Amino acid sequence: MKKAKGFRGCGTADGRPREECGVFAVYGHPDAARVAFFGLFALQHRGQESAGIATSDGCQIWERKGMGLVSEVFREDHLAKLPGRLAIGHVRYSTTGSSVISNAQPFLVHHGNEYYALAHNGNLINAQELRSQLEARGSIFQSTMDSEVIIHLMAPFFRTRFEDALTRALYQIEGAYSVVMLTKDRIVAARDPRGFRPLCLGKLDNHGWVIASETCAFDLVGAHYVREVAPGEIIVIDGEGLHSLTPFGPEKPAHCIFELIYFARPDSHVFGTNVYLTRKRLGHRLAREYRPDADLVMPFPDSGNYAALGYAEESALPFEMGMIRNHYVGRTFIQPTQPMRDFGVRVKLNPVRELLAGKRVLIVEDSIIRGTTSRNRVRNLRENGAKEIHMAVSCPPTRFPCPYGIDFSSKGELIAAQKGEEAAIADFIGLDSLHYLTLDGMVAATGLAPNSFCLACYTGAYPLTPPAELNKQCFETADLGL
Amino acid sequence: MKKAKGFRGCGTADGRPREECGVFAVYGHPDAARVAFFGLFALQHRGQESAGIATSDGCQIWERKGMGLVSEVFREDHLAKLPGRLAIGHVRYSTTGSSVISNAQPFLVHHGNEYYALAHNGNLINAQELRSQLEARGSIFQSTMDSEVIIHLMAPFFRTRFEDALTRALYQIEGAYSVVMLTKDRIVAARDPRGFRPLCLGKLDNHGWVIASETCAFDLVGAHYVREVAPGEIIVIDGEGLHSLTPFGPEKPAHCIFELIYFARPDSHVFGTNVYLTRKRLGHRLAREYRPDADLVMPFPDSGNYAALGYAEESALPFEMGMIRNHYVGRTFIQPTQPMRDFGVRVKLNPVRELLAGKRVLIVEDSIIRGTTSRNRVRNLRENGAKEIHMAVSCPPTRFPCPYGIDFSSKGELIAAQKGEEAAIADFIGLDSLHYLTLDGMVAATGLAPNSFCLACYTGAYPLTPPAELNKQCFETADLGL
Amino acid sequence: MKKAKGFRGCGTADGRPREECGVFAVYGHPDAARVAFFGLFALQHRGQESAGIATSDGCQIWERKGMGLVSEVFREDHLAKLPGRLAIGHVRYSTTGSSVISNAQPFLVHHGNEYYALAHNGNLINAQELRSQLEARGSIFQSTMDSEVIIHLMAPFFRTRFEDALTRALYQIEGAYSVVMLTKDRIVAARDPRGFRPLCLGKLDNHGWVIASETCAFDLVGAHYVREVAPGEIIVIDGEGLHSLTPFGPEKPAHCIFELIYFARPDSHVFGTNVYLTRKRLGHRLAREYRPDADLVMPFPDSGNYAALGYAEESALPFEMGMIRNHYVGRTFIQPTQPMRDFGVRVKLNPVRELLAGKRVLIVEDSIIRGTTSRNRVRNLRENGAKEIHMAVSCPPTRFPCPYGIDFSSKGELIAAQKGEEAAIADFIGLDSLHYLTLDGMVAATGLAPNSFCLACYTGAYPLTPPAELNKQCFETADLGL
Amino acid sequence: MKKAKGFRGCGTADGRPREECGVFAVYGHPDAARVAFFGLFALQHRGQESAGIATSDGCQIWERKGMGLVSEVFREDHLAKLPGRLAIGHVRYSTTGSSVISNAQPFLVHHGNEYYALAHNGNLINAQELRSQLEARGSIFQSTMDSEVIIHLMAPFFRTRFEDALTRALYQIEGAYSVVMLTKDRIVAARDPRGFRPLCLGKLDNHGWVIASETCAFDLVGAHYVREVAPGEIIVIDGEGLHSLTPFGPEKPAHCIFELIYFARPDSHVFGTNVYLTRKRLGHRLAREYRPDADLVMPFPDSGNYAALGYAEESALPFEMGMIRNHYVGRTFIQPTQPMRDFGVRVKLNPVRELLAGKRVLIVEDSIIRGTTSRNRVRNLRENGAKEIHMAVSCPPTRFPCPYGIDFSSKGELIAAQKGEEAAIADFIGLDSLHYLTLDGMVAATGLAPNSFCLACYTGAYPLTPPAELNKQCFETADLGL
Repeated sequence: MKKAKGFRGCGTADGRPREECGVFAVYGHPDAARVAFFGLFALQHRGQESAGIATSDGCQIWERKGMGLVSEVFREDHLAKLPGRLAIGHVRYSTTGSSVISNAQPFLVHHGNEYYALAHNGNLINAQELRSQLEARGSIFQSTMDSEVIIHLMAPFFRTRFEDALTRALYQIEGAYSVVMLTKDRIVAARDPRGFRPLCLGKLDNHGWVIASETCAFDLVGAHYVREVAPGEIIVIDGEGLHSLTPFGPEKPAHCIFELIYFARPDSHVFGTNVYLTRKRLGHRLAREYRPDADLVMPFPDSGNYAALGYAEESALPFEMGMIRNHYVGRTFIQPTQPMRDFGVRVKLNPVRELLAGKRVLIVEDSIIRGTTSRNRVRNLRENGAKEIHMAVSCPPTRFPCPYGIDFSSKGELIAAQKGEEAAIADFIGLDSLHYLTLDGMVAATGLAPNSFCLACYTGAYPLTPPAELNKQCFETADLGL
Repeated sequence: MKKAKGFRGCGTADGRPREECGVFAVYGHPDAARVAFFGLFALQHRGQESAGIATSDGCQIWERKGMGLVSEVFREDHLAKLPGRLAIGHVRYSTTGSSVISNAQPFLVHHGNEYYALAHNGNLINAQELRSQLEARGSIFQSTMDSEVIIHLMAPFFRTRFEDALTRALYQIEGAYSVVMLTKDRIVAARDPRGFRPLCLGKLDNHGWVIASETCAFDLVGAHYVREVAPGEIIVIDGEGLHSLTPFGPEKPAHCIFELIYFARPDSHVFGTNVYLTRKRLGHRLAREYRPDADLVMPFPDSGNYAALGYAEESALPFEMGMIRNHYVGRTFIQPTQPMRDFGVRVKLNPVRELLAGKRVLIVEDSIIRGTTSRNRVRNLRENGAKEIHMAVSCPPTRFPCPYGIDFSSKGELIAAQKGEEAAIADFIGLDSLHYLTLDGMVAATGLAPNSFCLACYTGAYPLTPPAELNKQCFETADLGL
Repeated sequence: MKKAKGFRGCGTADGRPREECGVFAVYGHPDAARVAFFGLFALQHRGQESAGIATSDGCQIWERKGMGLVSEVFREDHLAKLPGRLAIGHVRYSTTGSSVISNAQPFLVHHGNEYYALAHNGNLINAQELRSQLEARGSIFQSTMDSEVIIHLMAPFFRTRFEDALTRALYQIEGAYSVVMLTKDRIVAARDPRGFRPLCLGKLDNHGWVIASETCAFDLVGAHYVREVAPGEIIVIDGEGLHSLTPFGPEKPAHCIFELIYFARPDSHVFGTNVYLTRKRLGHRLAREYRPDADLVMPFPDSGNYAALGYAEESALPFEMGMIRNHYVGRTFIQPTQPMRDFGVRVKLNPVRELLAGKRVLIVEDSIIRGTTSRNRVRNLRENGAKEIHMAVSCPPTRFPCPYGIDFSSKGELIAAQKGEEAAIADFIGLDSLHYLTLDGMVAATGLAPNSFCLACYTGAYPLTPPAELNKQCFETADLGL
Repeated sequence: MKKAKGFRGCGTADGRPREECGVFAVYGHPDAARVAFFGLFALQHRGQESAGIATSDGCQIWERKGMGLVSEVFREDHLAKLPGRLAIGHVRYSTTGSSVISNAQPFLVHHGNEYYALAHNGNLINAQELRSQLEARGSIFQSTMDSEVIIHLMAPFFRTRFEDALTRALYQIEGAYSVVMLTKDRIVAARDPRGFRPLCLGKLDNHGWVIASETCAFDLVGAHYVREVAPGEIIVIDGEGLHSLTPFGPEKPAHCIFELIYFARPDSHVFGTNVYLTRKRLGHRLAREYRPDADLVMPFPDSGNYAALGYAEESALPFEMGMIRNHYVGRTFIQPTQPMRDFGVRVKLNPVRELLAGKRVLIVEDSIIRGTTSRNRVRNLRENGAKEIHMAVSCPPTRFPCPYGIDFSSKGELIAAQKGEEAAIADFIGLDSLHYLTLDGMVAATGLAPNSFCLACYTGAYPLTPPAELNKQCFETADLGL
């Protein structure tokens, strides 16, 4: 159904979008849409559900968004219809249930003969409450995205300076946001006071500016890294240059460590450090904490590659790539024939039997969320002759859901929350042994200040109190029927 | 661009939708979406740009809409995803410039955990003014449709009874509206106090109710005509049956006579009379007012068919179908080769030369708006040998634009407003003679009360004063370069 | 399945294509593909299943074909990829079962570094036999079309003059063919010695030539009718002009009278007479043969329009258009709701109840094939109040299938073959009375020589003996379960 | 243009398809199409241009093929229309110019009321000559594929036993072929007497048989490797089991060593050895032959991965993955902005600057064909700070084109043929040093008999003389303008 809107329960809309996303903005390039396209292209790993770009030619605002990859949504002729020197863009992560075009961003509104566009990465924890208040006053929402609340909070103040309207709105908002906005003549970026999600500032050779979730976007568009957008900072770029506002008082930073562990691209610089080298250091730490007897070290492609390289380097064990990925798979919805056990594994990966038969294998993983994928892969390795299978994970057990923009689903789906003990988890996955990196080991490997991170998914210590509803929906231990 | 929104001028949105449309509603049928589909199918002549259906299963609301014909927008599997016993539907007429999916209806909003859908035929003359007031208070609009104003006016009162919220909104609105609305458990229909557009009520064999712009929709879905929805009436259908509210004082009726002349289907019953027989009577009147020497009477397919039949019957001249329509044309955007004069005519119609050569032909037309199509067809007839060409038109000269929902474009585009005299118009079109039916003749042919019609497009006497902006945009005599 | 080929029975291919088609050719126009497009556009009534155009730029041959209407298969950018001054085109009629792209025409072959294209209207009665012989020699066929046999018969002689190879092939062929062919530098047209199907020659203002199944194609492309391609004639048009070959001895003509009755467009000139006026004369004859007491004459839209006009003129009964066609129907595959009786009728046509109630109605039809459509429409008229329903048919009872290119299906499906007596047919359809035009009346109404027609579908006297297999498959009286 | 056929020059068809492909067959599985789907899915690396499957249900043959990846061509509902216990399938490699659906396989023909399907991997060197002879006798070809010649050579003998007709055809053919064929009741496979391309036989748990280009297809469908189809062997599988024919005398084997170096999947068993371990041994050899001073070893993703692992293992240098692939790129045709130097590299790969800056890097590559890609990547590494860049290639210089099914283009495009000396090539690519593995080193690393390979692309010693035309087109040293 192109536009059909169904809702999960009677009178209950999907009020809790939990996506991770990527944002990009450019000011002062003659072909801003094209720069935004390549910026989003480099940020594609942050969201594959939908993509969108809005531009301004100084007079009007133009937009295109659609479901799918950046390269699927945009063709050359589309860019020709996105004129202007200013642009913002967005990629959105796929979560089940709310994959609808009306939730794609940038979010564009028309108000009082002006147009405004917004692209947001993060999750607002008091969005539902604010929305109810706004609706009671007569506001009508177009989407189920929490991002839309920001615009409605700004609307009564649109006749004042744009950045003032934004500041007024942000004062009422709690949660994680790295947001970029577009008016006909300016780009505005804002990052929440704790800096949950990354956001960085770069400069083009032609003196234009770019803003992106990660620095890998700068490399592709040929921009130079300048600095992070500071937690709590609002940056305005207009005809008079770049202005920085800091309307919020200082807060303790709470950078999401999972960006370093798993989410960010290894070639990016995030929270002031390189991701590739950080992940290798996590592997070094792992090797110092845990050294089972093994003949070889390997990742599952491609999740623990860099930690595995670090482990092999530190341990001097041979590094192998013992499961071969089918590079041309595309998506297929064809069902397997009856005897295809572990089909979901086999269709993507095939172990090299001659390499693995009779061997003691150490798998290095970046993280374990639900554990089911690992279980299937481990079983598949055993069927191909591996004698022992051990696993080292480059972070502690993930026990608590994230209300700030990473979709860990409910606590009941987290295997570490379910099983508790490492031994029980190892048993579930079918391992001979299992080791999680210690919290201290993980934080030390980053090389950054220990108190600068949000570690809530490991510790349950939330920097901002999540809403009661989240508690109810997600924090109870559901029965997984395992 | 699927979702790109460009605007005609800097800071100026397209604030004046001028479409004619068709609406349909059904209450109490186990497959309400299917009934709505066939209701819209029968109303397709009222709008070919977009089509949409919203249903309620008593708990949730479901919707699908899209650009194109009803038969293009809906397939069997779509209906399966539109469950419920309540439905409303809409077809929309194509006008240039605003053919975008965001303007398709039913218009669906989510507010306070409830969903509401609305489908509207007509045009509100104070929509722009109300919209500005609402935006100043912080409301954000999703479309450029005047219909959206109704919802925003209702929003602060959604916690009261739905029909009370609607009444409050309608008190503020001026213009033409035949509107149907859907909540999770009721259908509401309303018609403006002057009854500009038709709206009628029917009953299904199973005791369910239907509401439609025209009765031809009842014939296809097997419903029986009950009565018109009265001007100024609000009808509520819910679990306790049908309720009629009449919150507005009595007003002089102003039925759009152009529905009988041209717009409605000949098999419909509109404003209390049959359209086919009315058109034949218009032809009878014409034959009494005007009788040039002619060898045969014919319509241009298919605009003046019934008036031509009436004319032939009254005058005893032979009725012919002398221009053959290409029934399989579909739409083509292929450009003609150089020597294809009158291409727009030829590609659809081909005169039967052997029939027409040397003949004196009388064309009966229902109306002349811009005159250019007639001009091309007349020239084409002459090239195929017609000796004389006369034309009888079954209404007076159309001299004034319509602010109540018929898209006559601006006054400058109306040939009768431009040229004034019949002789000048005949000359422009290339006729040997031309006669328009007199105003009295037209009204008398309807058999209805003379003072029950809006005749503004012929007389300029507007029942409701159109906004000044309409005057400026449309009422000035533009130069057509004729 | 885009290319899946399934076959009806084990080892039995669909060897009997029975389609009616239209062909077009142009020589000597700078934009030959565009001329061919509009030629096919005007011939669309002869086939709606597939359309195709092949062109030559003097050096190479280019082609595009596809399923659907001409206007669906070709867009402006496609024409740009069909360069050259020579073109042939084809439209194909939809018959169930063989609607596959591999059977679309023009049929293009590559042989000995040359390319040849062919488009064929008609049916070869010895195609299956010739095909078996060719396969035994090692030839491999690409399609199930009998047209392909012509090319294979020509193949061993392609090194001789093209027209000599064609003559050699045609000597072996029996049946109906109006065929146009394209090589890199010439257009060749051929019509079988009995002239079953029409084929005519026209001239462009620029001295180029066109060939078409019907003259309505000349009107649209601005060509002048020159003459028919004579039965048994081969026309070659190349750089030295137009050459006519008549390699076959004289045969008694056998023009398909059904082209005049039903198939050809009313604005065409076919077999030397105008179709519209012929159909009106058929109506005149009918009125002289049969005059039931009736209040009005009407056709079912749009099958008997012109005969009905002729009948009304001769009988002085009022002509009405009492069933209203839904002009915007498109195709829908949506199923009706339960109580929608006569759905197939209602979805296309709606009677004007106020006109018909209590009336004695005379329907004029062009022909009755299976009778089921008429039965449903008649029932629908009665439900709308018609008091009596009589029917006059503008040809005799259709009792025998056609092996020369009209798809009448098998004898068992012909109601007149099944029921025999007029009274039984009237009873089946639900008529108060029924009259078929007499054979003599029909032939006399054409104004052409009585012995110039194939009347086999009425008389069973086949000009060319159909193959035994056709007899077996089609001539036995099947049980229709009526 | 869906079906437009244009030709490069006047009278010159594209007579030399040079693609690499993959074939698959299954006999005796209730859902043979599904097994074939997954077989092709695993062979996707052998061809991404088109995919197709033909099945037999014992009575009829069904087929679907299309352009694109296996997962794009087939959906679940397609498989439902491919019934039967026998199937063959094909994937085809993309070469410029002939990417048309008519060249997709399996190639299906209808002959004498029977259907036959064929799928072919390899290249026939005398196809053009045989085709000319067949056309002179009256045969008409449907495609430009050399594979079609096999069918035409068989056609006159189709009334004999199928395998006899095939043997007669193969006697006339020279070149490389691993071919599978399907009739309504049997699967036939044949491999040319020199065994250029791989082809292997496997067994399903249910006693059915599978045949595939590589064993990775067996792993996914759950089949067990039995043996290679022997060079010169014809295997027939029908209701009476598997029969092996060896109608050809013994020939010296000529296995394509490039399958081991580059083409085959690392998890496959080809020519009797495992590809992953072979590639690691090539890396070991390289490290023994060449050991520049370097800080780290890395492949370009993902071409030299396994040889690089072998090199690192043997040399004890750190293995790194210093260029990060954008995993979500999809295909984009968006053009870069002006300053995007090395765009083709950047859009897919991004170096980790922090890892590489100031380092001496050793790249291990599997092969160098044109050298331009390597040049761009090397430049990109230098721009990211690499101090020295050395390259080790796991095969000798590729100096001669391949007429047996690998598309190396013409000799003029091979950088090693152009530049000759290693130093000149290193200079072109921008390397500090370059080493190719020696011929003896390469052959020794395979562990197979030294005289069992075709090494023509390195030595110019062709096991079968290529046609003169190939010599002319490809063997002359063209000027690359380097």
